[in-house]
Amino acid sequence: MTQPNESGTGFAFRLAARTGRARAGHFRTPHGEVQTPAFMAVGTLGTVKALDPDDLHAIGAQMILANAYHLHLRPGDDVVRDLGGLHRFMGWDGPILTDSGGFQVFSLETLRTVSEDGVEFRSHIDGSRRYFTPESVMQIERNLGADVIMQFDHVIPGQSDALASRDASERSLRWLVRCQAEFERMRRDGETEGAGYSDETREADGGPPPRTNLPAAFPPTVTTSSLAVPEDRALSSSSPQALFPVIQGGIHADLRREAARSVRDMNDWIGYGIGGLSVGEAKPDMYAMIEAVDAELPDDRPRYLMGVGFPEDLIEGVRRGVDLFDCVAPTRMGRNGTAFTSEGRLNVKRAEFRTDPRPLDPDCECATCRRFSRGYLRHLYVSDEILGLRLLSLHNVHFLTALMRRARAAILDSSFPAWSEDWLARHHSRTALTP
Amino acid sequence: MTQPNESGTGFAFRLAARTGRARAGHFRTPHGEVQTPAFMAVGTLGTVKALDPDDLHAIGAQMILANAYHLHLRPGDDVVRDLGGLHRFMGWDGPILTDSGGFQVFSLETLRTVSEDGVEFRSHIDGSRRYFTPESVMQIERNLGADVIMQFDHVIPGQSDALASRDASERSLRWLVRCQAEFERMRRDGETEGAGYSDETREADGGPPPRTNLPAAFPPTVTTSSLAVPEDRALSSSSPQALFPVIQGGIHADLRREAARSVRDMNDWIGYGIGGLSVGEAKPDMYAMIEAVDAELPDDRPRYLMGVGFPEDLIEGVRRGVDLFDCVAPTRMGRNGTAFTSEGRLNVKRAEFRTDPRPLDPDCECATCRRFSRGYLRHLYVSDEILGLRLLSLHNVHFLTALMRRARAAILDSSFPAWSEDWLARHHSRTALTP
Repeated sequence: MTQPNESGTGFAFRLAARTGRARAGHFRTPHGEVQTPAFMAVGTLGTVKALDPDDLHAIGAQMILANAYHLHLRPGDDVVRDLGGLHRFMGWDGPILTDSGGFQVFSLETLRTVSEDGVEFRSHIDGSRRYFTPESVMQIERNLGADVIMQFDHVIPGQSDALASRDASERSLRWLVRCQAEFERMRRDGETEGAGYSDETREADGGPPPRTNLPAAFPPTVTTSSLAVPEDRALSSSSPQALFPVIQGGIHADLRREAARSVRDMNDWIGYGIGGLSVGEAKPDMYAMIEAVDAELPDDRPRYLMGVGFPEDLIEGVRRGVDLFDCVAPTRMGRNGTAFTSEGRLNVKRAEFRTDPRPLDPDCECATCRRFSRGYLRHLYVSDEILGLRLLSLHNVHFLTALMRRARAAILDSSFPAWSEDWLARHHSRTALTP
Repeated sequence: MTQPNESGTGFAFRLAARTGRARAGHFRTPHGEVQTPAFMAVGTLGTVKALDPDDLHAIGAQMILANAYHLHLRPGDDVVRDLGGLHRFMGWDGPILTDSGGFQVFSLETLRTVSEDGVEFRSHIDGSRRYFTPESVMQIERNLGADVIMQFDHVIPGQSDALASRDASERSLRWLVRCQAEFERMRRDGETEGAGYSDETREADGGPPPRTNLPAAFPPTVTTSSLAVPEDRALSSSSPQALFPVIQGGIHADLRREAARSVRDMNDWIGYGIGGLSVGEAKPDMYAMIEAVDAELPDDRPRYLMGVGFPEDLIEGVRRGVDLFDCVAPTRMGRNGTAFTSEGRLNVKRAEFRTDPRPLDPDCECATCRRFSRGYLRHLYVSDEILGLRLLSLHNVHFLTALMRRARAAILDSSFPAWSEDWLARHHSRTALTP
């Protein structure tokens, strides 16, 4: 449909079809192609909780997430680097994206201090003092070695006022400039083994490093050289990475538009993150923010709605042009005994399922539904058996993955508007029935 | 080598080779053949902890275990029956054996009262009063529907004196007579759906049922009709079952021999359990007891050493003619972070493995060792990630399963005496080095 955006670095995005604002695309990365729209399962600590890579392949998962904050604290991004990078570490040969840790650091509330330079915080594990700057986060994400790395951004609560939202959004833009500069510097400086930020150095000083000279304001110089990495390193532990900016702005459409324009003017980014949503705001506000940035973002780049979400959020996002999603909900809810099904959510622990021979969802083709009854799954939960956690996590990740596959097929054959309206109508009728 | 023991019920045992006392055989069951010697993984509650049936197939597991006591309490053997029996319930289409619950009930110590009729005990889950008799346990195991079911026996501590050992052994023999009678009665009474012992009835009365007229003494009438079940039910949820007796007698060779003779004279059993070992006695005593019963047991029937064991116990058992083993050690130790390896045990949580890129055991071909480093596995344990529990359990069950495959190959090519001596010498030299 559109010309592929060939970057020469192993990254490219090509739109295959569009129906209304919904898009079906191909996002090529050094570790394989992602057919969009797609849901990315979250492997915070280098494992999608309770699942292994074979489970993910069987589900049809394409790209997965890991988290820089968590992996920096445990086992240490230097350890991951020394063990060959995230792909080898976790045995996943497909594309990986790392979140920068912005969300985690700002969630620490009482444990952190924000300055223009960065964020000082205490580890949630051992209380040790740590310091994140845009530069150090780039170094951490370089050590981890994911295909796509997110900028370090300033995340605020979902209902923040315009002043706080503008402050965080503008800081995120200034930090993006610094992230990009560090990203470039690491590349120029040869990317030799051990060239990254040393964990020992970081931990030894225990406090803020000397403040660097910040760019006076954004937008900074536009560069495209960030795409120039030799193709032959595509599958090594230091294969090319793409830095995605994150668009902030709270629930204020003007701030969102302004941030999107500034980010776009700054660089020809390989993809764009839309952050700071699904953090407490009302759903209509979230949808409005996606609409606000739509016209400001280039058509031929993937759009990633961070931390979203539930099945209905994915459908609403796709209707508004989003290509990539991630959320811990399917695995977290799975461990809690709750399954997504085509008939709504199901709590497998309920007594009514004691002798129920049916699968969780008769319409589902996942390895859990093909093999096990609700009665058996209930038994596993009641008996605290580990297998139950895996089987429901597997089902839930499959549910969202398959939902996006179905949406993509509907975009490709132009049935998406009718299909998605029908899907949402059924969803809302079920929700209305549930007191 | 020997003539197959064709029972006409879906069960048969054929010896393929023997080297010294060690035997390689084929044990046919209604759900497939077991190549012996074999280690059976333990799925106490209808799941080999942290593993799923595909994991077990990939490991090469042939026959697995479940436990009547645990499944009676949770979810209830009637629930398992209503959901199609254990095979369908847990999604395992291979052979299954159920332990009778004797070991569990007698382990309750302060919570149980033993009489000649049976054992009154309190559930370890909710403290509810329960009552097991040889008859009720047969009904429970019938509901569960495993291929091989064990008699209800009187299990005593490993260092019990001769008087206590004789008392328990003789009671076990009298209970075997009652188990067999009930096993026959259920078969004669048509095996219709719901003909089994009703859980509601059991729970409603809350105490001992009226004492039945016991056979005055053993040995009772020898029957062979227990083998006469139509072949066409072999794969239904009520496929034919084989009742295995359990030989007790503590660590007293004369009692063991006497029990073995009595059991053998009682019936042409499809197989024989050797119980009450690996319960606190010294290893030489355990080995001596296997040797004591060897000459008393028919050559052409499988011998199952219950609750054993560790790698060296399996080798020592095979050298003394044992065909089947089971133990919770591989999964329990796996959940605790300890791996069996060809170089001895390895605690994966140790700091020295932080950046160790090697697999748990370089000689292992399991799905864990093929994919993951010690560094990654250590990280999963340190971070309390569920996947770690599965990966080590998988490795450990594979280790014992592969050890028995290796032993079988050595028996078949007559290298077993040399191979096993070498294996044990290496094992003991490692043990000696470990302070």
